[in-house]
Amino acid sequence: MSYRALQEEAYEANLEIKRKKLALYTWGNSSAFDPQKRVLAIKPSGVDYDALKPELMVIVDLEGNIIEGELKPSSDTNTHLVLYRKFPDLRGITHTHSTYAVAWAQAGMPVPVFGTTHADHLTDEVPCTDFMSLESTENNYEFETGNLITQTIRKNNFDPANVNMILVAGHGPFTWGSSASASVYNCVVLEEICKMAFLTLTINPLVKSLPEHITKKHWERKHGKDAYYGQR
Amino acid sequence: MSYRALQEEAYEANLEIKRKKLALYTWGNSSAFDPQKRVLAIKPSGVDYDALKPELMVIVDLEGNIIEGELKPSSDTNTHLVLYRKFPDLRGITHTHSTYAVAWAQAGMPVPVFGTTHADHLTDEVPCTDFMSLESTENNYEFETGNLITQTIRKNNFDPANVNMILVAGHGPFTWGSSASASVYNCVVLEEICKMAFLTLTINPLVKSLPEHITKKHWERKHGKDAYYGQR
Amino acid sequence: MSYRALQEEAYEANLEIKRKKLALYTWGNSSAFDPQKRVLAIKPSGVDYDALKPELMVIVDLEGNIIEGELKPSSDTNTHLVLYRKFPDLRGITHTHSTYAVAWAQAGMPVPVFGTTHADHLTDEVPCTDFMSLESTENNYEFETGNLITQTIRKNNFDPANVNMILVAGHGPFTWGSSASASVYNCVVLEEICKMAFLTLTINPLVKSLPEHITKKHWERKHGKDAYYGQR
Amino acid sequence: MSYRALQEEAYEANLEIKRKKLALYTWGNSSAFDPQKRVLAIKPSGVDYDALKPELMVIVDLEGNIIEGELKPSSDTNTHLVLYRKFPDLRGITHTHSTYAVAWAQAGMPVPVFGTTHADHLTDEVPCTDFMSLESTENNYEFETGNLITQTIRKNNFDPANVNMILVAGHGPFTWGSSASASVYNCVVLEEICKMAFLTLTINPLVKSLPEHITKKHWERKHGKDAYYGQR
Repeated sequence: MSYRALQEEAYEANLEIKRKKLALYTWGNSSAFDPQKRVLAIKPSGVDYDALKPELMVIVDLEGNIIEGELKPSSDTNTHLVLYRKFPDLRGITHTHSTYAVAWAQAGMPVPVFGTTHADHLTDEVPCTDFMSLESTENNYEFETGNLITQTIRKNNFDPANVNMILVAGHGPFTWGSSASASVYNCVVLEEICKMAFLTLTINPLVKSLPEHITKKHWERKHGKDAYYGQR
Repeated sequence: MSYRALQEEAYEANLEIKRKKLALYTWGNSSAFDPQKRVLAIKPSGVDYDALKPELMVIVDLEGNIIEGELKPSSDTNTHLVLYRKFPDLRGITHTHSTYAVAWAQAGMPVPVFGTTHADHLTDEVPCTDFMSLESTENNYEFETGNLITQTIRKNNFDPANVNMILVAGHGPFTWGSSASASVYNCVVLEEICKMAFLTLTINPLVKSLPEHITKKHWERKHGKDAYYGQR
Repeated sequence: MSYRALQEEAYEANLEIKRKKLALYTWGNSSAFDPQKRVLAIKPSGVDYDALKPELMVIVDLEGNIIEGELKPSSDTNTHLVLYRKFPDLRGITHTHSTYAVAWAQAGMPVPVFGTTHADHLTDEVPCTDFMSLESTENNYEFETGNLITQTIRKNNFDPANVNMILVAGHGPFTWGSSASASVYNCVVLEEICKMAFLTLTINPLVKSLPEHITKKHWERKHGKDAYYGQR
Repeated sequence: MSYRALQEEAYEANLEIKRKKLALYTWGNSSAFDPQKRVLAIKPSGVDYDALKPELMVIVDLEGNIIEGELKPSSDTNTHLVLYRKFPDLRGITHTHSTYAVAWAQAGMPVPVFGTTHADHLTDEVPCTDFMSLESTENNYEFETGNLITQTIRKNNFDPANVNMILVAGHGPFTWGSSASASVYNCVVLEEICKMAFLTLTINPLVKSLPEHITKKHWERKHGKDAYYGQR
């Protein structure tokens, strides 16, 4: 079973989507990527989390060929593929329809850095893509969703290592990280940031972003070269 | 026990209302319809979910006669009857007072298609009826609620197969589907769509509906003739 | 143990406050009234719900004398007393700091009848008292809270049988009923009504009250002389 | 094990953060202070609540020296130190990123006394600091956070015994009390007050503060010299 470890990792991440209440029914999927074998393990499409097993995770290569697995992979597989191809350092990706993140995506607005909870996790606003064009939608929708994400990150000059989440306008969140598990963690963070930002904006519609020096300080103390958070 | 299977189906759907937190106390009911026997099984009125048993589900024909059962059927039974008569393909109906769906019904507003979570499940806005007239209210209230629903669907030129939910103004949601269980599923979907739409509108009061080509794409990939979501 | 049944009733009602999440810590109390013995059983002040036992419920007469019990009764006991004296049909009273009801009380606003969830339970808006005057506050605060409640009900020409809940401005909800358990039920209803009304008003700031004929219809079908809801 | 009791107290308080859902993952910390030994026990940095044990609580003196413990103390330790030094009566401090408290902190606004739930616990608004300056941020961030807190309390002429909580602008809540456990209790209170205030302000944007005589009455009946709440 040469893909078993990768399947286990994807399986655990998909279960975590349910545990953290990031999705109703089957509305979310995680994948894990192996850069040596250049394949990913991803949730099968439309299968309940309770019915998942590690061996049901579908192994797909970067061209979208099914390498191993009896089931059809997630309908969002092509979006995952594009992200792994364009951002070679990613090891895990998660997509859900978590409530507050979807609300910001539907509002079509990036989430400003309103506080240190946000700055502890990413250096900039959570970007929001444009709405997909008619042509792209009719072409290869999931593939073009991946392109929309990577173009938006690049257009903003964001480093995907420092901005590990995005909102697809009218749709919902995609998050990534150094493992499938890290991508689910980032999806939880995004949902909480989006809830806090919703409340903040409602309390004070004239609120401004956090001063840049505080944003930078919080990022640095957790992720900079002299980081001192945690036990490292 | 010739109605036992239908009673089991209605029983399970009513329990699911409680499990999914769509109703406090006894504030919701599901029915299952058998098109051969032309009867429905429906929750008895005012009975706690915890006290339900399959054999307590009341069997009613399409004229409202009780065919089997010791208890009085749901006070909303006449609304269910009208829907089964006017929309012959329905196999299950659910009515609850779920919080966010009621809020939109009380606001008297249809829920626009703000995103793909909505478009994954229905092709158009969630319609909202007008407020019932004095005459209809005094006539046969529950029967007229059914008429209000079917008239609103028809006035909008909606197909009840593609728009399987509605808000009765000032009251709350009615949802339907290809089984009692599917109608509860649609009620969960509606509650989540209504919560997301509430948040979206609060974040961005000038938000517009999702571009039509994206709405259509999401509906098609799950329900169109070339649908590719899930394992079919 | 001549008061044991009354203590059991009050005990169960107080536990239900916790079960239904109407109060954090010790922030709520229920009482049960016996019209023959003219005493009430009420929660002891500041005691955790988990530490309650039936025999700890304090028996107090309508003049506020402790008839039985080792502990001090709720600091709100005088408010309960006034309500039992002025509204002789009450058999149970509940006071909590449930979140959405407190929010409307703090806003100093009655809760309009926005929908049938409300009209199923009371015939009119949920009234909100004025803020208590300096004199009343310095006089006998809890006693005057009772006076404020009864005056507000009377000023509105409400029947306490039909309007079984009120908001004390800047403070929170008091609810009552035909038993201690019914008063907790009404407190759950109030919390849900207040949440729905908050959402409704945010979605549509120009929303109007439910047409009166629908309000009346819903009240009548559950509580009128020809009521047909439930199994009676 | 001369610090064992203090470690136990800090350990229990940190677990309570998780139980009360005041923090996701590791986003909160509590400390307990021993005024005789002039040391505090505080959560180790970045360790999951589920992995905590009493003996893992780090003992730190008021100059920030680690007296006992294998792990690095919380990255917020210097903020705790400053508060214990400047407010010598404190015995416990808690910091979290609880959702509604963070929202008000991000809005950069103090929380007005809108009702008696607030007045039962503190005599004045919940203050909010200014945003930290560039210089202070670059100097010793956590130390300066402590200074910002103590300066804000003093500038308002608040007594830390009567106002036992504060919002650090753009960051989140710090609460304190007569024990580590009391500081977590105050953090729960703050979260609830912030949620109620958010709702209140949304329902009625023109809402005014509670009249001062009611605020004073509620504080006095729970904490004044003639307090009569509870069983003392």
